[in-house]
Amino acid sequence: MTLKLNDKYLGSFVSAEELSAIAPEVQAAHDLLTSRTGAGNDFLGWLDLPVNYDKDEAARIVEAAKKIQKSCDVFIVIGIGGSYLGARAAIEFCTSSSYNDLCKDTPKIYFVGNDISASHMAELLQICEGKDICVNVISKSGTTTEPAIAFRIFRDLLVQKYGKEGAKERIFATTDRAKGKLKELSDAEGYETFVVPDDVGGRFSVLTPVGLLPIAVAGIDIYAMMDGAAAAREAYAECDLANNDCYKYAAIRNILSRKGKSVEFFVSYEASLIMTAEWWKQLYGESEGKENKGILPASVSFTTDLHSMGQFLQEGSRIMFETVIDLQESSHGVEIPFEASNSDGLNFIAGKDMHYVNRQAFMGTVLAHTDGGTPTMVLELSKRGAAEFGYLVYFFEKAVAISGYMLGINPFNQPGVEEYKKNMFALLGKPGYEDRAAELAKKM
Amino acid sequence: MTLKLNDKYLGSFVSAEELSAIAPEVQAAHDLLTSRTGAGNDFLGWLDLPVNYDKDEAARIVEAAKKIQKSCDVFIVIGIGGSYLGARAAIEFCTSSSYNDLCKDTPKIYFVGNDISASHMAELLQICEGKDICVNVISKSGTTTEPAIAFRIFRDLLVQKYGKEGAKERIFATTDRAKGKLKELSDAEGYETFVVPDDVGGRFSVLTPVGLLPIAVAGIDIYAMMDGAAAAREAYAECDLANNDCYKYAAIRNILSRKGKSVEFFVSYEASLIMTAEWWKQLYGESEGKENKGILPASVSFTTDLHSMGQFLQEGSRIMFETVIDLQESSHGVEIPFEASNSDGLNFIAGKDMHYVNRQAFMGTVLAHTDGGTPTMVLELSKRGAAEFGYLVYFFEKAVAISGYMLGINPFNQPGVEEYKKNMFALLGKPGYEDRAAELAKKM
Repeated sequence: MTLKLNDKYLGSFVSAEELSAIAPEVQAAHDLLTSRTGAGNDFLGWLDLPVNYDKDEAARIVEAAKKIQKSCDVFIVIGIGGSYLGARAAIEFCTSSSYNDLCKDTPKIYFVGNDISASHMAELLQICEGKDICVNVISKSGTTTEPAIAFRIFRDLLVQKYGKEGAKERIFATTDRAKGKLKELSDAEGYETFVVPDDVGGRFSVLTPVGLLPIAVAGIDIYAMMDGAAAAREAYAECDLANNDCYKYAAIRNILSRKGKSVEFFVSYEASLIMTAEWWKQLYGESEGKENKGILPASVSFTTDLHSMGQFLQEGSRIMFETVIDLQESSHGVEIPFEASNSDGLNFIAGKDMHYVNRQAFMGTVLAHTDGGTPTMVLELSKRGAAEFGYLVYFFEKAVAISGYMLGINPFNQPGVEEYKKNMFALLGKPGYEDRAAELAKKM
Repeated sequence: MTLKLNDKYLGSFVSAEELSAIAPEVQAAHDLLTSRTGAGNDFLGWLDLPVNYDKDEAARIVEAAKKIQKSCDVFIVIGIGGSYLGARAAIEFCTSSSYNDLCKDTPKIYFVGNDISASHMAELLQICEGKDICVNVISKSGTTTEPAIAFRIFRDLLVQKYGKEGAKERIFATTDRAKGKLKELSDAEGYETFVVPDDVGGRFSVLTPVGLLPIAVAGIDIYAMMDGAAAAREAYAECDLANNDCYKYAAIRNILSRKGKSVEFFVSYEASLIMTAEWWKQLYGESEGKENKGILPASVSFTTDLHSMGQFLQEGSRIMFETVIDLQESSHGVEIPFEASNSDGLNFIAGKDMHYVNRQAFMGTVLAHTDGGTPTMVLELSKRGAAEFGYLVYFFEKAVAISGYMLGINPFNQPGVEEYKKNMFALLGKPGYEDRAAELAKKM
């Protein structure tokens, strides 16, 4: 089985009665979602995407990826939020957090245009010196500040380096099907384009071309990934708390939240899952954090962070619960060497594989944190691969839809994210923001 | 000025009266700390370290760093928790989060032995193939599981590659002055050793050889760093809330916490500060998270995470406040290009430097989050450099001591971190843990 929710360590925090009591709410959320009558129902494209995605476009993505792999050393992916986190999460999950450092026959991949740091940009330009470059610019509108700045800089660089004709062969745009500034520019310049579907929000977009092109460039099988998501769609179709782990996860986190557990930690024991946690934080934080509600999503990578956040999770304010990925099978084996002198006292595990020891650390931690008052849900994941990533994505996407409806909010909008942008535009003197600029001046 | 607390955006959350009312508590904490009569008073070595550190040892560190720079391509730093986070934070703060990717005349630095992932280790061994390697193993006892496993593997690798005599020239141990397994081994094998002081806890150890050797290898001026810390020691010596920003920070976070703001976000606008946030999380989480108390430390890197966690910070559960680093001066300048077509509508900022735009994003966000009910403290930091890092370290160390005493806990112990280790040892069948193993068997 790809993914299994193990809730046996929750016993002292969530009872069977509580689960039964919340079942009608789960049913109501399920009905809202599947009847497509709930809030945000014009953004449900992700629900059937694993089976109805555009197969011709997927074939085009695979072809473009081959072309990119052949023609560059460095692949620059320009995007922010959902146009950044999903692809990076998938690549690190399926390969490694050290993807760029490892020897391989696919290009290095740098994610750019996800901040406004001058240092970050200057360093990246240094890294690109003397390298062959391709660019994927990802933006539905083409006017989001961070990626737009980065695209100006890299487009200039490519035109300087390869000429206008050469550059257009190296620039790939993932954008709106028909409208928007980036679509207009791409058509005018002759860039190959891929579609950001209208009915899939940014944080749900990893299994659209937004995520799939960079994922394919990294040498990952995107069809296997879609198949994995399709398997999850099948597995989590029925509203039955006893057999639907996705809905059970949504139910349990709501029960815990109503008992004062306001923060959920996404926990893994592999650095390769750190970006999956970041992707998950956007999915959950942006879907649920509104109307002064929502569980605050946080993350740690163990055992690393057991030596920093471990004390707090064990004995600090009791406001947290953990959702832990228990990876059953490691991609690599490393045996712990025997040392005749046993100077470090470690011979009791000599000959054991590190992954075995890592899983005992996981088990010991679950038991310790549970005893300390931090409830823990365990998600047993078979291994790290394309299909497993697709499966996990669908699990978390459907769970947040159910969970968000149970919370009584629209899980598919993000009304608060424009506030800082409006202020920023006003402070930067953008035409049309004069009134806000006057307001802000009074507060500063 | 290196660092200045700007609290003007806190106005609607914390009044002058509240600050006056809490002043006696600050005074009491100050008295406990400076009279060295409070809980954990045998771990106050960090207080005077910036002026009384061992100058001969510092000179030895600089010499060792030169030797390491000359003799390797890859420098492996083995340590976990405080023996990992401080050095990595300092190196990224002073250089870049892309330190390893950038062209330079110092070795690549990999931090190892801070997890038990077999994949992570296998990948690192691949990266090291064909490279010249030096190792710094950092452990007071020499028996902590994660670094001990890594050191077994890398010691074997070095002996295979360079022979026993060659390996001893490439291994540097930072450990106890006199006792412990690693000290014994180092003396027996002839490794050069550096001292982890007895009266400085792991999370306060970045300005000891624990942090200073890797920092020096990265080409950073450790004397400037100590001078920066010494300047902060001077600046924050007197207990005067009006003029001591360090104490004011401690006071304000306690006021906010008592009003239900249970989570503090460390916020920066530069990827190079992400590891400083991780270092800060250990310092604050481990110092305060005990007896079911403490503010939960979390972090975000903006504007990146404004597109993931921004919605929650703007409109989610009102349980958070932010402490934001406002970097006044960037290490690099990057001008935003002009585009005649203005296809992305960005020409209103063409010709501006990215750092200027980044700071308007910062200001816009402070105003937006404050309006949304998330209080924000601003720490104005002059620039990223060795002296500034030392200053910041001392600011946060002294503030957590004051804050922890105000909370009524011992800020210098970490009683909860052993729990998972004991369980792990029991599950791994370590001799001496049979009783615990029997207990755990009942729970599984």
